Amino acid sequence: MGLIVVKFGGTSMADPGKIEAAAGKVAAEAARGHRVAVTVSAMAGVTNRLVGYCEAIAPVHDSREYDVVVASGEQITAGLMAMALQKQGLSARSWLGWQVPITCEGVHAKARVRDIATDNLHAALDKGEVAVVPGFQGITRDGRVATLGRGGSDTSAVALAAALGAERCDIYTDVDGVYTADPRIVPGARKISHIAYEPMLELASLGSKVLQTRSVEIAMKHGVALQVLSSFGGAVGSDMPGTLVTKETPNMEQEVVSGVAHSQDEAKITLLSLPDTPGVAAGLFGPLAAAGVNVDMIVQNVAADGKRTDMTFTVARADLPRALQVVSETPALSGVEVRTADNVAKVSIVGVGMRSHAGVASKMFAVLAEKGVNIQVISTSEIKISVLIDEAYMELTIRALHTAFGLGG
Amino acid sequence: MGLIVVKFGGTSMADPGKIEAAAGKVAAEAARGHRVAVTVSAMAGVTNRLVGYCEAIAPVHDSREYDVVVASGEQITAGLMAMALQKQGLSARSWLGWQVPITCEGVHAKARVRDIATDNLHAALDKGEVAVVPGFQGITRDGRVATLGRGGSDTSAVALAAALGAERCDIYTDVDGVYTADPRIVPGARKISHIAYEPMLELASLGSKVLQTRSVEIAMKHGVALQVLSSFGGAVGSDMPGTLVTKETPNMEQEVVSGVAHSQDEAKITLLSLPDTPGVAAGLFGPLAAAGVNVDMIVQNVAADGKRTDMTFTVARADLPRALQVVSETPALSGVEVRTADNVAKVSIVGVGMRSHAGVASKMFAVLAEKGVNIQVISTSEIKISVLIDEAYMELTIRALHTAFGLGG
Repeated sequence: MGLIVVKFGGTSMADPGKIEAAAGKVAAEAARGHRVAVTVSAMAGVTNRLVGYCEAIAPVHDSREYDVVVASGEQITAGLMAMALQKQGLSARSWLGWQVPITCEGVHAKARVRDIATDNLHAALDKGEVAVVPGFQGITRDGRVATLGRGGSDTSAVALAAALGAERCDIYTDVDGVYTADPRIVPGARKISHIAYEPMLELASLGSKVLQTRSVEIAMKHGVALQVLSSFGGAVGSDMPGTLVTKETPNMEQEVVSGVAHSQDEAKITLLSLPDTPGVAAGLFGPLAAAGVNVDMIVQNVAADGKRTDMTFTVARADLPRALQVVSETPALSGVEVRTADNVAKVSIVGVGMRSHAGVASKMFAVLAEKGVNIQVISTSEIKISVLIDEAYMELTIRALHTAFGLGG
Repeated sequence: MGLIVVKFGGTSMADPGKIEAAAGKVAAEAARGHRVAVTVSAMAGVTNRLVGYCEAIAPVHDSREYDVVVASGEQITAGLMAMALQKQGLSARSWLGWQVPITCEGVHAKARVRDIATDNLHAALDKGEVAVVPGFQGITRDGRVATLGRGGSDTSAVALAAALGAERCDIYTDVDGVYTADPRIVPGARKISHIAYEPMLELASLGSKVLQTRSVEIAMKHGVALQVLSSFGGAVGSDMPGTLVTKETPNMEQEVVSGVAHSQDEAKITLLSLPDTPGVAAGLFGPLAAAGVNVDMIVQNVAADGKRTDMTFTVARADLPRALQVVSETPALSGVEVRTADNVAKVSIVGVGMRSHAGVASKMFAVLAEKGVNIQVISTSEIKISVLIDEAYMELTIRALHTAFGLGG
């Protein structure tokens, strides 16, 4: 039997009783002969409380010290998980980010895992000890505490699985897998038993909350088989199958569309009657990037008169004020009329099969037209089509697309 | 100006607002030209909550993992304190136990500071940066997290001051100094402006809660000048004097008695009609020590008939069940009648001047006799006399002694 990494989210760590239940799942994997490394999130709510302390002291604070404060949440659950595993009769110990060590790079509070030393962990695992590694944390090259940004524990787990050469990384969360659409919106949504990295990556980045986008990227890059499972279901993952995410799915006939994703975290900015001259876009999107504003969808029409055109782009809702500030300070845009809307939603269909099937886009647009939904912006890639629509029509659109592409059970 | 260490207790760290107030005191010291290192306790209540999590998972748990869990409380306040100092315009950073490093030895959860590396800290202090070091924590030689036992942050601060060669260690707490008796019991108790290490050590070990005993021991050993101050008084220590603890006090005429201390954490065990043969005491107190029971006062009378005698000793109340277990398992004591009482209190008078003044003990006993208080056990050293009495008479006794030795203002 091989080595697996098991990750538990904050709701699975919410109190000592839940930690003991999670330890039971690890014990079951160990009983099957697996060597097991465990990655833990902080107790649900703890990270928010710690972030609140930092913001209370100073809205703008030293992110190196922020990392020291917030990394403690996972330190607590790592120690408690090790205790709970010992209570199950297993040999176990915690390995904090600086003890492994997990080396990070990039900016504090949003660091990226650069390297995970595996000698210590392999030695522990090989002697039958469960290694408990707090998620979300590492250290910088100069020995400061670093954290990976909110939700970073998924990334920690997958990076750990890649470094250890694990045969699987099980992500226990409060849902039991990836669905063809959000089951709260589409009651007939079907759990996807097996999906490839690329559509999973699109689903994650397009609004599915089940897996963190970066964790899927790392899994894809290193070929780590991911499994999403419910913390609150049966005894262990294999008894209660969730969603497996791997390089290729076993069914030869790839489904055309894997699922429908949505995001309400969208705001739209339209610039009217822009000068249609080279450099205008660069003059805007450069400063937006410098201000840390992530621009998602962009459309610009050909100028009918060859001189002036309109441009629309979307940003995360929280970034709207900052984006407008940048627009107002861009010289080339002085005098340009700006319209904004945040009552918009992005609905996307995702599927590897789209590559080889013409007509997916036209079918999608036909469905929307039939329901009377106006498409404001369209964005496509090889394996996804996204449309920006009035938020009021979001649920209706998701249900209609889910039915039209035959995604139900 | 020199280097000082400033330590804040849990009530001074209880919330972001209190942390900012504490940072203000540090800023005032820095403004006077001092280089400052800061030691912080966890937010009031946090350590208890973390200990509660550990006990919920397993009443008997791995103390190495306990240390990982509970050390996080001081990590949080260290980061927040560094942020709060930066907000005051100071350069500051946190130095966790493993970053300094602070090396500990002995058992986990009750470790002792072995060595504090000072190169990093001196470099930071010399460039004008405030070094914030979490109290209570360090690492073992093999790189595991260690903690110093409850209340260990005083010890951390004094050990840090000794290692750095600080000219003073200021302990900010929720009282404004050391008093001649507990002011809640003796309204006329006087704040002691200056006291020597030895009587302070006796007061601390005899029940005064102001300073941790070990911190006074370390201060005495290394000649660190300690100052106890209120967190909630004026701007900085020097404006609002507390109690200074040093090698010698400036007044040539030493006061005979410095203060009256008391402890209610006492339980008494009496063994009746013991065989008065060599080895009985060793046969009992050896196993008690091995069981981790700390025996305080011991009295044994001469055997009137040369054959059998009575013995009384005291232990901490929480240790009474374990002590009785050891007694019942000691072969030499089989058949011996055992009586216990936990409605007892220890009242002590402490003062360096006792060494050279005869009659202090007789005066103390006369005061108790006059008040009709029966003395159950007596224990003396060069600079203290302790009596064990019925708990009901404790307050009366403290007040009578305080008056009789002229300790009032």
